[in-house]
Formats: sequence, C-alpha cells, structure tokens
Amino acid sequence: MERTVSPLYAAIDLGSNSFHMWIVKEVAGSVQTLAKIKRKVRLAAGLNSDNTLSDEAMQRGWDCLSLFAERLQDIPDANIRIVGTAALRTAINADAFLSRAKTILGHPVNIIPGEEEARIIYQGVAHTSGGSGKRLVVDIGGASTEVIIGEGFDASALTSLKVGCVTWLERYFKDRYLTEDNFNAAITAAKTAIEPIVEQYQKLGWETCVGASGTVQALQEIMLAQGMDEVITLQKLKRMQRQAMQYERLEDLDIEGLTLERALVFPSGLSILIAIFESLGIESMTLAGGALREGMVYEMMSQMRHDNVRERTLMSLQARFQLDTQHADTVAATALSLLQGCDTEWQLEPQAQYLLHASAALHEIGTTIEFKKSGEHSAYLISNSDLPGFTRAQKHLIAELLRRFREQLTSMPEQHALSAQSATRILRLLRLAVILCHRRDHQQQPPFSLSANDSKLTLTLPAQWLAANPLTDAELQQEATRQTDMGWPMVITAS
Amino acid sequence: MERTVSPLYAAIDLGSNSFHMWIVKEVAGSVQTLAKIKRKVRLAAGLNSDNTLSDEAMQRGWDCLSLFAERLQDIPDANIRIVGTAALRTAINADAFLSRAKTILGHPVNIIPGEEEARIIYQGVAHTSGGSGKRLVVDIGGASTEVIIGEGFDASALTSLKVGCVTWLERYFKDRYLTEDNFNAAITAAKTAIEPIVEQYQKLGWETCVGASGTVQALQEIMLAQGMDEVITLQKLKRMQRQAMQYERLEDLDIEGLTLERALVFPSGLSILIAIFESLGIESMTLAGGALREGMVYEMMSQMRHDNVRERTLMSLQARFQLDTQHADTVAATALSLLQGCDTEWQLEPQAQYLLHASAALHEIGTTIEFKKSGEHSAYLISNSDLPGFTRAQKHLIAELLRRFREQLTSMPEQHALSAQSATRILRLLRLAVILCHRRDHQQQPPFSLSANDSKLTLTLPAQWLAANPLTDAELQQEATRQTDMGWPMVITAS
Repeated sequence: MERTVSPLYAAIDLGSNSFHMWIVKEVAGSVQTLAKIKRKVRLAAGLNSDNTLSDEAMQRGWDCLSLFAERLQDIPDANIRIVGTAALRTAINADAFLSRAKTILGHPVNIIPGEEEARIIYQGVAHTSGGSGKRLVVDIGGASTEVIIGEGFDASALTSLKVGCVTWLERYFKDRYLTEDNFNAAITAAKTAIEPIVEQYQKLGWETCVGASGTVQALQEIMLAQGMDEVITLQKLKRMQRQAMQYERLEDLDIEGLTLERALVFPSGLSILIAIFESLGIESMTLAGGALREGMVYEMMSQMRHDNVRERTLMSLQARFQLDTQHADTVAATALSLLQGCDTEWQLEPQAQYLLHASAALHEIGTTIEFKKSGEHSAYLISNSDLPGFTRAQKHLIAELLRRFREQLTSMPEQHALSAQSATRILRLLRLAVILCHRRDHQQQPPFSLSANDSKLTLTLPAQWLAANPLTDAELQQEATRQTDMGWPMVITAS
Repeated sequence: MERTVSPLYAAIDLGSNSFHMWIVKEVAGSVQTLAKIKRKVRLAAGLNSDNTLSDEAMQRGWDCLSLFAERLQDIPDANIRIVGTAALRTAINADAFLSRAKTILGHPVNIIPGEEEARIIYQGVAHTSGGSGKRLVVDIGGASTEVIIGEGFDASALTSLKVGCVTWLERYFKDRYLTEDNFNAAITAAKTAIEPIVEQYQKLGWETCVGASGTVQALQEIMLAQGMDEVITLQKLKRMQRQAMQYERLEDLDIEGLTLERALVFPSGLSILIAIFESLGIESMTLAGGALREGMVYEMMSQMRHDNVRERTLMSLQARFQLDTQHADTVAATALSLLQGCDTEWQLEPQAQYLLHASAALHEIGTTIEFKKSGEHSAYLISNSDLPGFTRAQKHLIAELLRRFREQLTSMPEQHALSAQSATRILRLLRLAVILCHRRDHQQQPPFSLSANDSKLTLTLPAQWLAANPLTDAELQQEATRQTDMGWPMVITAS
C-alpha cells in the first residue's frame, strides 16, 4: 500500500482567555486540520491587581498543557511553535509559569511582544486572503488588539493596543448592563487607546480591510443569520449596538445568529470595533481567513509562500482531488476568451473574470465523486472546503456556478459576490466553455466567436466545423434552447 | 502546474434497444465517468419478419454513431471497444450496417456471439462485486438474456438465451393489457427457453446470485421507494406482479418508484425474471455493480484485475483522497483487535468484521474536505461514490458509521447490511479505535484490553499509561459517558 508522507505541524497559542492547540498536516500545498483543541483557561482573569498570576490560574494552565503535551510527542521539534500573548506579557511572575510549562510540554513557550504578535497575525491573514493592494488588519483579542497595515506578505505598520474584549468587559460592562452609558464609556476608552496611531495609519492608507477575531466572526454569523451580506460597515455595527441595547443585561442577550459562547464578550468587542471604525474612518471590513495560529503554521511551512493566494488554493484543490489540470486550463482559457467577446457590451465587475477562471479551474471537482450528480457534488465540495483567498461570498458564488455547470439549468440563487446579472452571465459563459471543450482535445479549440447584444448571445462557428462535430452541435443547440428558455436569449449561427 | 496523465477509454454497446457510449478515465485504480451518452435507436424494432434491418433503423443507428464518433477521435485505438449484440447478431444484412458504421466511427464494430457477451458481462460483474464463492449472474437485455455461473474472475457456464424484455413485450404484451393471461404466457415461454440449461446450472450450483440489467435496477428502485430492503426474492417479484396487475393497461402503470422510462418493459422483464427464479430455484438476488460495458472497460484496463474487489476499492479511495494509509491501517488493526475482545460474547455476523475494517480504512475521507464536520463529509462522500464490491446496503451502513466516527454520538438509522444491534456495536468499536489511535503513533499502540458482557464494554488500560496520556484518558472517559448515555454501558478501568 502506498504510504503518504504526512508532515505534521502544531501551533499552540496561550491566549489571555483560552489556550488553543491546532494540529495540521500539509497536503498538496494546503493545510488540513487533524485536531483542534481549545480550553477556556481564563489566564487574564487570574491576574491579580499587582499583575501576578494566581496559583489557581497557573494550575489551570498547566493542566491544559498536560493534555496538549500528549499530542506533541509525535511531531518533530521544528514543526512545533508555542506562543504566549497579552496575559503572559503582563504577568510579572510569568517565569514561574513558563518554567513548569516547558517541563510539561517538552518545548519552550515563547512569550511574544505585541508587535511580533501583530506581525504573525499579518502573515496568517496574508496566507489566507486574496486580493491585491494595501490591507488594514484588525484582530481583537481578549487582552490586546492588533492593528496592522501591509501589502502582499510585508507589513509596514504593526501595533498592539492594550485593548481587549475580556479586559473591556471587566472594565466597562462589569455591572453587566447593556446601557448606552456603558457602551459609550467602552467606545471612548478604546478611541483613546487607538488615538496615538490614527495619524500614521491614515497617512499610510489602505485599500481593503479585514478583521480577524471572534468578534468579527460573531458579527458575520449574525449578519448571515439575519440575511445581510458579509460586508461589515459602521452602519451595521451601530444597528447591532441598538439590537443589543434592547436587552437589559448581558445574560438576556438573544440576538438572532449570536451563539451563547460568544455572547459574553460581544458588547465589549463590538464597542472596540466601533471605536476602531470611527477613529480610522474604516468604510467596510470582511472576515479574514486566518490570524495568529494560521500565521504560526504558514511560517513553519515556508514553501507555502505563494504570491497569489487564490492561485495557490486552486492548484492545491486540483492536486488534492487529482483533477485533469490540462482540461481545467483549456476550459478556463475558453471561458475567458468567451468573456472577451462580450466584455465591451457587458462591462462586468473586475472580479467577475477571476471568479469565472476559478469556477472553470475547479468545475470537474465533483466528477471525482460521481458523474451523474457531479454539479451537486462540486457545489458540496466547494461549500465545505476552506478556500484561502476567496471570501465567503465568493466561495458561495463558485459553488452555485458549479452546481449548474452542465445539464439542467436553473436560475442563480441570491449571492453577494457579484450583481445578479453578472452572476447569470458568467454562468452562461462557463456552461458554453464546458460544452465547447467536451472533446478534451487540448490542441485544437473550436474556432468560435461570441458576441453579446444586451443579454442576447450569438455564438458563431464555421458551418463545416459544425457538420464535422455533430455531437458538439447538438449540445450547443440544446444549450441555446435551455438558456433561451430561462429568458437569456442565445443563438448558434453557422458562418 | 502539474499535468495529470489521463488515460481515456471508451466502450460502445450497440444494443437491441439503445446504443450506449461510456467514456471513462482511470484514476488511481478506479474508473471515473467522463461522459455517458445513450440514444434509443430501437434497432430490434427495425428488424423485419425475415430478419432484415430496415433502412430507417440503419439510418437511426448511423445518425447515433456520428454523434459518438466525435468523442472517439481523441482516444487511442487500443482503448476503444465497440460491440454489437442480439439485434445485430440476428440481422441478416448486418454487414451493410457494419461497413458504413466503421467508416463513420473510424473503428470496427465487433458483433459478439451470445457466449462472448455472457463472458464479458461476467467480467463486468466480477470487477464490481465483492464476496467469494460461486455466483450466478443474470442479465436481461432487450433481445437476449445472459445467464452465467462463475467464481472469482472465471466463468464456468456461459449461456445467452433468445429471451429479452423488448421481444417479450412485443410477443406477450402486444395488446398492452396487464392480464394474468399475458403474464402467464410470458412466464411460460421464458421457462421453456431456459429449460435446456436448468439441470446443468443446478448441478453446478452457486452461493450468491446477482442481477445486472434495467429490470433488476427498476425492481431495486421500487423496493427502496416502498421501504423494502434490497434483496430480491420470488415473493417480492410476485408482489410486484400483483401490483402491476392492479392496472388495466401498460400505459396506466403507476407503481411507486417505477420511472416512466422503465415502465414499458417492466412487465415483460418481470415475467422473465420470475421464470428464471422459478426454473433455477433462486432464493435471493442483489443488483450487480456492472455488466457488459463495465466488462469491456475493465478488460481493457488489465491492471485492474485485483483478486479482492473490495480491497481494491478501499485502496483506490484512499489514493484518490490522499488519505494517510498508515494511520488508516493502524485504526483498522486496532478496531479489529477490539473486535476480537468481544467477539465470543457478541457473535457478530461474519461480514461485520470487513465492514468495520472498511469503515476504519476510510474514516478520514471527510477530513480531506474540512475538519469540523468531517463525519458529515465522510458520509456524503461514501454515499455518493461508487464502491465496487460493496452492496448498496453496505455502502449505506459505512456512510452512517462514518457520519458518527467521532464527537457527538447519535443512534444508527435503519439499515439492511447488519442487524441493528451489530451495527451499533461496530460503531462503538470504531469510535474507540479512533480515540485510541488519535496520537497517530504507528509504532506504539496503547496496551488496552477490551471485554464485553452483553452490551457492556470494559476497556482496561494500565494506570501508569493513563497517567502518562491524560488527553487520551480524558477522551476515553468522555466517550464512555457518551456511550453509556446512549444506553450502551461502557467503563474505563485502570489495571
């Protein structure tokens, strides 16, 4: 039997609220999770007023590390990274904790400065997010908040603020009341903390902004549960604050889409985020695909550094599912050349092109499971896989395009990655490309030309070619009927 | 970008009712469908009383072959096989049809004798079915029915009868009435045709019986739709006949689970199957995973001949989804050693062992998609993949076991591969094996021993070992609680 090489990696993050262990395996240029273990150690809550960690808090930490230690035994030293963050940075008796921790783990714990934490978080974001241009990254932790500006894999500004959703909870929502006063105090305090960096950050500027933390994830879950799109704006944050203020106390909070686990630190996290939005003048933010732990793991896997995260994701999925990359390339090239034919008329959003490219690159992924319902399978695989570089909305769009890449045609569901019209249009092109390439002949492409007049498509092929390829002709005719029946007129003409 | 080698194969079968083209690709020792094209050419219906094919029927055939020809251009000659069956065997002017067919296709059509058809069908069954011992194979076609006895990959009796569901429809249900008289005439005539081979076949004997044709597939679909298990018996066939006779005419037929497409030849096919069951004294039959086209393809891929079809399937899935086979082997070995501990007490069915082995071999398949819901993903992948060698019921059981292989425990749904009690029991062992191997240390296995007392399990491990492995200990304790809460008592004891 074939033996798979399985390089395992472990990232352990001793956070102020929870300890996390993440065990992964590198598979074909992607990170596959083997285990995720989290324990609420509440280290920050064990800090006394003089910043000493209580014996009980240290013991909770050591008990948790004993569990983690068992899994570390089988992972090579070079593939293990263990870091401590804000609570351990603050504790004046951290050395006592560390020395026993090292004995338990068989590995040293590295307490990292806030700037280093910010740097690693940025790597986690850079390795899991698509898009180009400068990005602003915000990560709200339990006892610190990292704010970074970078481009590609290089960060140009790194800040760690002593602002966190656990510390802000204890300071500004100690009475557990969801009053406007408490919110205002929390927001104002966060603004004061961020004030020193505002000028520098606004001067540097950014094109996109991503958030990487439980608060931002909770917001996304709420927004999706309430039927909104995935883009976080100040307006939506204010709406959330008003929703929260409808409840008297923290324990009464019952916002649709907010899980019990996240509810406790939701008002404090929300206050910090509102302060950051207002202070820096952020227009919109999306959820990052990774942060500290992802940064730790990707940095250990140095070969994973790929300039184009989205392209790396597509290649990894093609390799993991053993897709016919030559055929995928041909379909993608055909789809893009179809797009060129109608782009002047259609003026699609810039991202339409790479979403069409990605869909073509992955269109046969479901065929690896089974042929008959391969569209369904493709949609299932895409919806449930991690696609670094693609936003949740883009992943959803690709899944829905692939659900319909061949055979019966149904209208596209609601999605937030493109306008409804553009999504329909790239679906039409994808289906045409799949039919035009069905012979899997990668040398000779059908000599087609495509033109668009409003929503009407005219595909022209030489009469002689159509006569020589009766199956393609029959399938194109059937496709023209299907698209026309959907109200998307299409004709095949012979030249 | 990595280029995948894609050896394509095509099997074309010019049947009496339909022409089929099946284009496949060999991927990691399994057959992946790239295209399936079927046209109802109705060649047999174009045979005149003197057994000449009408010009119209020939033209329908050639038109269909022109479509097929387009797809053949890119497949190497050695990977193409084209056969004609009963209608072409019978047509006295088949040469005229063949000569033009060869020009159109660029490949010769091979009209195969009935015995050769039976031989290839047997290969198709042998390559896609599990189990050992002698098997009886029955394939009811449009104009012929093949009956074969074989063992492993060797057939010892090959018969092609001039009995088919299309010819029987035209002869015994010509008036389209579903009367007892029509059924009786059809059954009697089929019995007369099979009579000459009854003695020889009964003398040879068989242990299992599989059916490979639209009729048997239609029966399975009806049985599943009506909530029955997948095993076809004479009693069920008679029940189907009574259900059919509740309708006056063929076009009125409205049996739950019977598709319109299959309805026309259902009464004639059913009559033939009843005759075969009664004449040969068949007790039960299941659906084969393949027949003529599968035999054609697997024979071209000579390296696919693997003595143990089920093992080949497991290895192929492990390779296709790049599973960690070393870990899968360790979990499987652990699961089987757990089974040994309680087998005397539990006395599970013989097939329980290989179903447990198969589940362990594939348990991480869903993890390749995503970790959190990996049980769900495993169930999805298994349910939707082709698993040569496993019956539909076994596939369903494996999917349901894998849905529950870790984390939350729920009771098993209804299934027909094992008793409900046995299914629960192998689920318990699978989960334990996964926990015991969670460290992925393939050298050292935990020194456990397991014993059963009725449904109560006692897992014993050295106290020292438990102390040294607190995470495993915690997970085992949690699992004992989960199983006990389900009414399946379990304790962990230290020795």
